[in-house]
Amino acid sequence: MKFSKLFAKTRKDYPKDEISLSSQLLIRAGFVDKVTAGVYTLLPFGLSVVNKISKIIREEMNAVGAQEILMPALVPKQNWEKTGRWETFDALYRLKGVDEKEYGLGATHEELVAPLAKKFINSYRDLPLALYQIQTKFRNEIRAKSGVLRTREFLMKDLYSFHSDEEDLDKYYDKIIAAYWKIFTRCGIRDKTYLTFASGGTFSKYSHEFQSETEAGEDEIYLCKNCLVGLNREILNGEFKCPKCQGKEYEIKKAVEVGNIFKLGTKYTEPFDLSFIDKKGDKKMVVMGCYGIGVSRLMGAIAEIHHDDKGFIWPDEVAPFKAHLISLEGAEEKADEVYAQLVKEGVEVLYDDRELSAGEKFVEADLIGIPNRLVVSVKTADKIELKRRDSEKTGLLSSEALLKTLRG
Amino acid sequence: MKFSKLFAKTRKDYPKDEISLSSQLLIRAGFVDKVTAGVYTLLPFGLSVVNKISKIIREEMNAVGAQEILMPALVPKQNWEKTGRWETFDALYRLKGVDEKEYGLGATHEELVAPLAKKFINSYRDLPLALYQIQTKFRNEIRAKSGVLRTREFLMKDLYSFHSDEEDLDKYYDKIIAAYWKIFTRCGIRDKTYLTFASGGTFSKYSHEFQSETEAGEDEIYLCKNCLVGLNREILNGEFKCPKCQGKEYEIKKAVEVGNIFKLGTKYTEPFDLSFIDKKGDKKMVVMGCYGIGVSRLMGAIAEIHHDDKGFIWPDEVAPFKAHLISLEGAEEKADEVYAQLVKEGVEVLYDDRELSAGEKFVEADLIGIPNRLVVSVKTADKIELKRRDSEKTGLLSSEALLKTLRG
Repeated sequence: MKFSKLFAKTRKDYPKDEISLSSQLLIRAGFVDKVTAGVYTLLPFGLSVVNKISKIIREEMNAVGAQEILMPALVPKQNWEKTGRWETFDALYRLKGVDEKEYGLGATHEELVAPLAKKFINSYRDLPLALYQIQTKFRNEIRAKSGVLRTREFLMKDLYSFHSDEEDLDKYYDKIIAAYWKIFTRCGIRDKTYLTFASGGTFSKYSHEFQSETEAGEDEIYLCKNCLVGLNREILNGEFKCPKCQGKEYEIKKAVEVGNIFKLGTKYTEPFDLSFIDKKGDKKMVVMGCYGIGVSRLMGAIAEIHHDDKGFIWPDEVAPFKAHLISLEGAEEKADEVYAQLVKEGVEVLYDDRELSAGEKFVEADLIGIPNRLVVSVKTADKIELKRRDSEKTGLLSSEALLKTLRG
Repeated sequence: MKFSKLFAKTRKDYPKDEISLSSQLLIRAGFVDKVTAGVYTLLPFGLSVVNKISKIIREEMNAVGAQEILMPALVPKQNWEKTGRWETFDALYRLKGVDEKEYGLGATHEELVAPLAKKFINSYRDLPLALYQIQTKFRNEIRAKSGVLRTREFLMKDLYSFHSDEEDLDKYYDKIIAAYWKIFTRCGIRDKTYLTFASGGTFSKYSHEFQSETEAGEDEIYLCKNCLVGLNREILNGEFKCPKCQGKEYEIKKAVEVGNIFKLGTKYTEPFDLSFIDKKGDKKMVVMGCYGIGVSRLMGAIAEIHHDDKGFIWPDEVAPFKAHLISLEGAEEKADEVYAQLVKEGVEVLYDDRELSAGEKFVEADLIGIPNRLVVSVKTADKIELKRRDSEKTGLLSSEALLKTLRG
């Protein structure tokens, strides 16, 4: 993509009410546009990052046998009434249509996925089943001041699993923990992310959050100094032992929740009478688990963790482009050739072909934070200068060597 | 994908209030699930078709230089007030948040894209610009009874173009007509789709719809017998000449609108003061066009057009899978081999490995309508039987010949 044609402009200013650094930078670097508090438009750079995160999530969800569907945001009032959440769910946006029909905009989808699963599950042979979607969620947040970390409309991956018994749920729950670690590793935030014990409701003593350490986080986690497992504040009341290693020493960290997993048991299967016939011919309730990842929030968390004072340093797998090609004065023809070759070879490259000074181009490249910066100039002759965004070192490569590096 | 593992069950019944054949079939064949009137869940088959349509649309939009973004559904009240549509837009779902902030759920996005473009457009050098999204729209429809052809929540591609003058808009408008024909050709409905003149508002005499002929359509178009251009009812009042060829003889057809293009002029740029500085240094208003395609509706239109009394006959490029492999009794091992080979070669194949009779499998294959049916049985020995869904002929192929056919 040529920068001169791209709908992306870096900005010197940003909305004054953005208090999180990631959101300030995402706006300044042209990844998102703020519509109003808690509501954003994804611009081409931001959409590319979100699509890459979504691709990673899909691959890891499909690998654990989950199947993708797409549920609507208009969830009828009677579905919420069945579970009692029409009255109690504060974050629900409620609306009424011309036919007086009422809906709650899906803030989570247990109320739709349980009756859907009921149409397909009859016998133990139909279990286990795992369904997920990457879909737009709505939450009527009182305050939305942490930029893309807490929004009123956001992209979420929500997975729901259905099992014949708790043992099978437990096994799948552990599989999902492993899949989540793969996702957070590929997104480059594994080292800063902690599995955190949270309260579990009536069915299970604990649920779990994946919390990524960042100053902009609205949560506080208590990190066990012994085993690095986190505890959130609500379960720390009274009980001062780490649920994993029994340790008693903690470090307090500010963090943002990037994932959340929960053993729901029969909480949502009972209201919808989601049952099955077991091997003996008896009717039993289906046991459920749910597993969320905030996709657009994840972009924010990655942004919080991977930047310096010049701008972003995107991890390779989620960067909006693989390479950022800059042509300096007098080398335009050579740069055009390199660009054409990279495009031909399928390398995602942003080509800064604009009439700007070298200095301005370098500053913007650092702000946008694409991992591989390529410079073609009269000085480099036939070679291309490669600099990784996360390093100060530069190297001169032939175009063959460059292709090998970028493909690898 | 193995059918035994897939979240897809064909059904013998369908909701009694579904009056369109496409929606009855889409529900029976397990493509969509009906949540309530005008609100559907996409199941794996349906999501696959919608993703394929979206891919075609993206390719053709990118080919005319349009750039993808993603705008939110929560459009603030003040944006609608600027254009006067808060009061007048009947189909708008209106809602209020805890902070008393009001939103209209995006039924179309002029009110967001114009102020967004304003942040990027200053000079004639920033024009033309074309932005699109594939995004969920909401419409507060009084009646929603035509299944997926008219829903309250649906996936739409909406493109907005920005120009320095009418001449440039006219050129781009014609480019989009050509791009739309490519899209409808690839979706297999070109022959049944007619460019239809509709009223154009204050800026332009006509707008245009793309209308696909089907009995389930809610529209009536007047098809010029001479040039096959359509006219919708609103522009026929009084004037009985075809705007293209001046012909006076028409045939009335029932049809569904799959696309709609409109020269907006300055209707939405003036309220947001979206202007630019021209070559002479004068301030001028930006001229706008908008271009929609209902993505989920398009699936319905394709379904209406491509079926027989046994089920769907999906066009190759939008079929949920490329091949439907059926193993008959005694040939399971051979079928497993063929399946493994197809998967390895990247052919999207649905493998019916369930313990059902041959007859049941064939009936379901016809209902689902994947274009290439493959049968492996004791009778076929080393060969594989191939039958196209749109033909009665069968052929026996070696696995090499089969791969060549399916790849081509």
